[in-house]
Amino acid sequence: MNNKDILKIGIVGYGNLGRGVEKAIKQNPDMELIAIFTRRPPETLDCEGPAIAMDYITDYQDKIDVMILCGGSSTDLPEQVLEVSKLFNTVDSFDTHAKIPEYFDKVNDCTKASNTLSLISTGWDPGLFSLARLIGQSVLPEGEDYTFWGKGLSQGHSDAVRRVTGVKNGVQYTIPIENALERVRSGENPILSTAEKHKRVCYLVAEEGANQEEIEKTIKTMPNYFADYDTTVHFISEEELTKNHNTMPHGGIVFRSGVSGSGAKQRIEFSLTLESNPEFTASVLVACARAVGKMAKQGQTGARTVLDIPLSYLSPKSEEELRRTLL
Amino acid sequence: MNNKDILKIGIVGYGNLGRGVEKAIKQNPDMELIAIFTRRPPETLDCEGPAIAMDYITDYQDKIDVMILCGGSSTDLPEQVLEVSKLFNTVDSFDTHAKIPEYFDKVNDCTKASNTLSLISTGWDPGLFSLARLIGQSVLPEGEDYTFWGKGLSQGHSDAVRRVTGVKNGVQYTIPIENALERVRSGENPILSTAEKHKRVCYLVAEEGANQEEIEKTIKTMPNYFADYDTTVHFISEEELTKNHNTMPHGGIVFRSGVSGSGAKQRIEFSLTLESNPEFTASVLVACARAVGKMAKQGQTGARTVLDIPLSYLSPKSEEELRRTLL
Repeated sequence: MNNKDILKIGIVGYGNLGRGVEKAIKQNPDMELIAIFTRRPPETLDCEGPAIAMDYITDYQDKIDVMILCGGSSTDLPEQVLEVSKLFNTVDSFDTHAKIPEYFDKVNDCTKASNTLSLISTGWDPGLFSLARLIGQSVLPEGEDYTFWGKGLSQGHSDAVRRVTGVKNGVQYTIPIENALERVRSGENPILSTAEKHKRVCYLVAEEGANQEEIEKTIKTMPNYFADYDTTVHFISEEELTKNHNTMPHGGIVFRSGVSGSGAKQRIEFSLTLESNPEFTASVLVACARAVGKMAKQGQTGARTVLDIPLSYLSPKSEEELRRTLL
Repeated sequence: MNNKDILKIGIVGYGNLGRGVEKAIKQNPDMELIAIFTRRPPETLDCEGPAIAMDYITDYQDKIDVMILCGGSSTDLPEQVLEVSKLFNTVDSFDTHAKIPEYFDKVNDCTKASNTLSLISTGWDPGLFSLARLIGQSVLPEGEDYTFWGKGLSQGHSDAVRRVTGVKNGVQYTIPIENALERVRSGENPILSTAEKHKRVCYLVAEEGANQEEIEKTIKTMPNYFADYDTTVHFISEEELTKNHNTMPHGGIVFRSGVSGSGAKQRIEFSLTLESNPEFTASVLVACARAVGKMAKQGQTGARTVLDIPLSYLSPKSEEELRRTLL
C-alpha cells in the first residue's frame, strides 16, 4: 500500500472507547495512528501510541486525516467537536438521542464554515441499529419496529445501584424478556413498553452490616430506573464480582415485523452479541473514519450520519472487489 | 403530497415478482404505478394496473421516472436491461452472482451513454444480505462470514426433483442445520461447506405405480443438487402438497463472527424470515426505485448497486426526520 493511501488518524480522549479505537486501528492495515490527544498529563496515559497534550493539537493539522473523538456525550463531545472540527475532519459517537438534531446542526454549521467534514453519532445505537431501523421501515412500510437491548451491562443503571446507601459495589444487567421476543417473532406486533421488553438483574456487594432487605427495596422502588421493571437483586462477594462481572458485554436486537402487499408476514432481525461494548463501538468508529477520509478527499464538507453515506465507503476494498465478492 | 413529488413507476414483466411489485407500490403513498409492460397479449394479464404491450414502451419515456425490471436472470434481464435503460432509469434483481461484475459493466456503459441511471442486483441476496456482509467485514476485519439460507423453498432444486422420472409434482426446502448455527454462534469460527450448513427436504407426489425407492435414490445421488447433502424425501398426496406447500417462504441468516482488538468476541447477525420470497424481493426493489428516483433527480447516471447508495435514499422521510427518529 502506498504511504499516501494510508489513513492518518488521531484520537481525542483516552478512556475505554479511546483504548478500543487504538486497538481497532491495528486491525486495519490501511490506517495509522498518529497521536492520542489528552487533557491529562500525557505521560500518565497507559497507551502504546504517542500521547500528546491537547494544547498541541493545532500542530497536527496537516498530519492527520481524521480525528476520532472518544469523549463522553454529556459534557465532552458537545464542546470538543466544535473545537476540533474547526481544524480536522472528525468522527464521534454522540449518543444523547434527543439532542442529536441540535448537535447535528451545530456541527454542520461549524464544519461548513471550516471546510471540514464530521460524521456524528455513530457506533451501534445510534449507528448500526439506526441503519437496521431505516432498512426495515423503508422495505416494509406496513409494520412495527422493536428494539431490545441486552443482555448487557448498563453503565447508567450500574451507577444508580452503586449510589444506594449500603452498596459497596455492583453491576446491573439489562436482559430482554424471552416471552416478549417470542411475541414479536410470532408476528402479532404487540404494543410493548420498554419495561415489558426488558428485565433488570443486579449483582451487588453490600457493605459489612448493611441491611440487604432495605437495599433491595430501595432499588426495586427507584423511579424511572427500576420501579417499572421486573428487577432481581443478588448479593454476592467482592471476589465473585471481580471474577464474574468484570467485562462489559452488551448487544441487542432490532426487529422490523411487517406484511408485504398480499398480507404475507415478513420479518427482519439485526442483532449484536458483544463481549466488549466499548471495543465494538470503537470498531464502528474506525470503519466510519475510513468513510470520512474518502468523502473528505472528494471535497465534501459539513455534518453527516451513517444514514447519509454509501456503505461501500466503510470498506478498504475497491467497489469492483465488493461487487465481485459481496453481491 | 404534491403530484410532482409522486414517483411514477413502470413494471416490466408480470410473473410472481411483477405481481409483488404491483402490490408493494400500493403500500407506498409516494409512488404511483403508471403501466405494466408485457410480451404477452396485455389483455391476458390478471393485473389491476394498466397492462401495455412492450412495443409501446417508448411512448412512456416522459411518463415514468423508474422502471422496475421483473424478468428472470438467466435470459430476460441481460437483454431487457440494455433495451430499457436506453430510455428509462431502472432497478432490477439480477442474481446470477458470478456474472454480476460483467452485467454491471455492460449496464454502466449503456446508461452512461444514455444519461440514465440503473440500480442492479438488488433484493435480499444479492441485496440486503450484501449490505450485511459489507457492514460485518468493515467493522470486524478479523473474523469470518457465514451465510445460511432457509428455511425456504428453493426454486432450482424444486425444478430438479420435478424432472425426475416418476415424480408428478413436488417441492424442495433448504433448511439450515441447527448444529452448524450453534457452532457459528459459539464463536469457534468453523470451516463449513454449503452442504455442512444446510439439509434438503423434499415433498413429492409420485406418479401412480412409480417406484418410490428408485425416485428417492435418484434424488439423493443427484450430483451438485443433492449428493453432498443430508437429503430427506417424503412422499405425500397431491392434496397435501396443494394444502401445505403452496406458499413460497424463504429467508436466511448472514453472520459476521469476529474479534475486536483485545480478542473480545463480537457477533453480528442479520436474518430474514419471509412468508413470501417474491413479495419481499419486490418490496426491496420498490424501496430501491425510490433511491434511483432521488439520484436521477440529482443528475446521476450509470450503474449502481445497494453498496453505493446512502441508505436514507430508500426512505420517503426527510433526512431531518430520519435523524430525529432513527438515531
